[in-house]
Amino acid sequence: MNTHILLKSRPKGKPTLNDFQFVPDEIPQIEKGEMLLKTVYVSVDPYLRGRMNDAKSYIPPFQINKPISSGIIAEVKASKHPDFTKGDFVSGILEWKKFQKSNGKGLMKVDPAKAPLSAYLGILGLTGLTAYLGLFEIGKSKKGETLFVSGAAGAVGSVVGQIGKILGCHVVGTAGSDEKADLLKSDFAFDGAINYKSVPNLRKAIATACPGGIDVYFDNVGGPVSDAVLFNINPFARIVVCGAISLYNETRMPMGIRVEPFLIKNSALMQGFIVNDYARKFPSAIKQLSAWLAEGKLNYKETIVEGFENIPLAFLDLFEGKNVGKMVVKV
Amino acid sequence: MNTHILLKSRPKGKPTLNDFQFVPDEIPQIEKGEMLLKTVYVSVDPYLRGRMNDAKSYIPPFQINKPISSGIIAEVKASKHPDFTKGDFVSGILEWKKFQKSNGKGLMKVDPAKAPLSAYLGILGLTGLTAYLGLFEIGKSKKGETLFVSGAAGAVGSVVGQIGKILGCHVVGTAGSDEKADLLKSDFAFDGAINYKSVPNLRKAIATACPGGIDVYFDNVGGPVSDAVLFNINPFARIVVCGAISLYNETRMPMGIRVEPFLIKNSALMQGFIVNDYARKFPSAIKQLSAWLAEGKLNYKETIVEGFENIPLAFLDLFEGKNVGKMVVKV
Repeated sequence: MNTHILLKSRPKGKPTLNDFQFVPDEIPQIEKGEMLLKTVYVSVDPYLRGRMNDAKSYIPPFQINKPISSGIIAEVKASKHPDFTKGDFVSGILEWKKFQKSNGKGLMKVDPAKAPLSAYLGILGLTGLTAYLGLFEIGKSKKGETLFVSGAAGAVGSVVGQIGKILGCHVVGTAGSDEKADLLKSDFAFDGAINYKSVPNLRKAIATACPGGIDVYFDNVGGPVSDAVLFNINPFARIVVCGAISLYNETRMPMGIRVEPFLIKNSALMQGFIVNDYARKFPSAIKQLSAWLAEGKLNYKETIVEGFENIPLAFLDLFEGKNVGKMVVKV
Repeated sequence: MNTHILLKSRPKGKPTLNDFQFVPDEIPQIEKGEMLLKTVYVSVDPYLRGRMNDAKSYIPPFQINKPISSGIIAEVKASKHPDFTKGDFVSGILEWKKFQKSNGKGLMKVDPAKAPLSAYLGILGLTGLTAYLGLFEIGKSKKGETLFVSGAAGAVGSVVGQIGKILGCHVVGTAGSDEKADLLKSDFAFDGAINYKSVPNLRKAIATACPGGIDVYFDNVGGPVSDAVLFNINPFARIVVCGAISLYNETRMPMGIRVEPFLIKNSALMQGFIVNDYARKFPSAIKQLSAWLAEGKLNYKETIVEGFENIPLAFLDLFEGKNVGKMVVKV
């Protein structure tokens, strides 16, 4: 039997399990040019929250009573497609279904011999690409500069920090627990780590950890952490606005410190980053990430949740900060 | 006799006349390599408010009981400097004094035969340079795009809009009275003009005036106008953060709509602009501005206040929006 996970209702504020519906279905029949895919790993990502709203954005919203989709690794169980054969593994944006058919469009073969399959959703997938391209294309970090990362123990943040160290930066990050903050230093090579939930004065804690000020701020979180960072930016600072997980479940328009005076007095730049804008650079970026991974220069962590039935819960747990590194569901 | 204008106290919030002090002094004696300057025109600018705070910024703060300085056109009354002779007119950052001496450093000769002297503080001075370089270096406006300008009837805004029209943009601006809004269309070639103080719903008024959305936002004002603009920006929009006059007199940290979600979903850029960062491009920019002016493609307005004793009041009036175009004091 097959199962689909549909968006049952648009979440108001924080999503709940009631916003998702599991429905049984047949396993689809394939025709010429198609293949049958069995879902193996499912990526759950903060940006999916935005697609659950009925709002214009860079990708269209999910539809009510239709399956949700995200990055998925699947196994080819049967194929009438010339380019794919039974036993292949593929990666792409697919639907939250145990089985689905595909004509291969937008899918890429991945090699389980070269890296664990789940890595193709993380360090060698959109996560790694987001970290790499955001830092290079907007952050433009240079040796000797200070790089500050929010959500630093998350999937993207933990990669950003390590690339910063490879480039020769002083790297400091925030995370939401002492455990995660420790991990930043022990496993991800950060020079400094701040538990933003426990420090009495975040602005001062950042100033202490970044005595030379902040040249590049890679922001995955937004909100009060970003407010505290603004007071510590240097002239010509670059702020990569990659994510704003602290704001995604807000039901009112989020308010905060106005950024304009900080940007003016520092000639600073702030730019929204969507990885798909840089698709032409994916091959070269993946090549570099793979090389660093092979050289042992990049470490990555995954939080792997077991079971197709736990996909919605794993997604909800992102907003509780329950993941370290990439959150993936193994089906 | 000579007179100086000193900063008597750092303003709390909106400056008042009591923050300034007039003191009499001797007319200085000059030595070899120096000249005696008589102030002719004084530029008063919103950015001077920032220098009245004791805060780190891109230029050092004014000192208490020391003269204020700004852009000034002066006449050389006597010279022992090889490069300047009596009767020359010079432009530069000088002190609020009726007479002062100078060694010529940082001063540029200006020609009263080529343009009215006050124009060298405005359209052919830092005002014109700010408009031109902000729009070209950060805004990167292209033909067919929509350019939105806040503070559009001000010194910089009125030039920005006209350059936008030269480039072939759809140009819309905000101003603080019906009179100014009318002027934007009648004198400065704007396609649309909004009195932000009188429209019932600024966000909708902007949407109506910019049916294709906003590609470049040249911001002189900050605050609620910018909030309303954010809802109307297009993918890959560029926001030139040139000034934030609405915030300069705030005594509390100004709060507003968080920009991050807007920047992310539009891959939009926001960058603080300080004209002095682009000093190497001043000569080519002035050349282009002079050419447009000579061709009749640029119009400019000045609000000229008479009398050295009125310099502080003219400065205060900027924050009441009493100027149209460049505010200048004729001594």
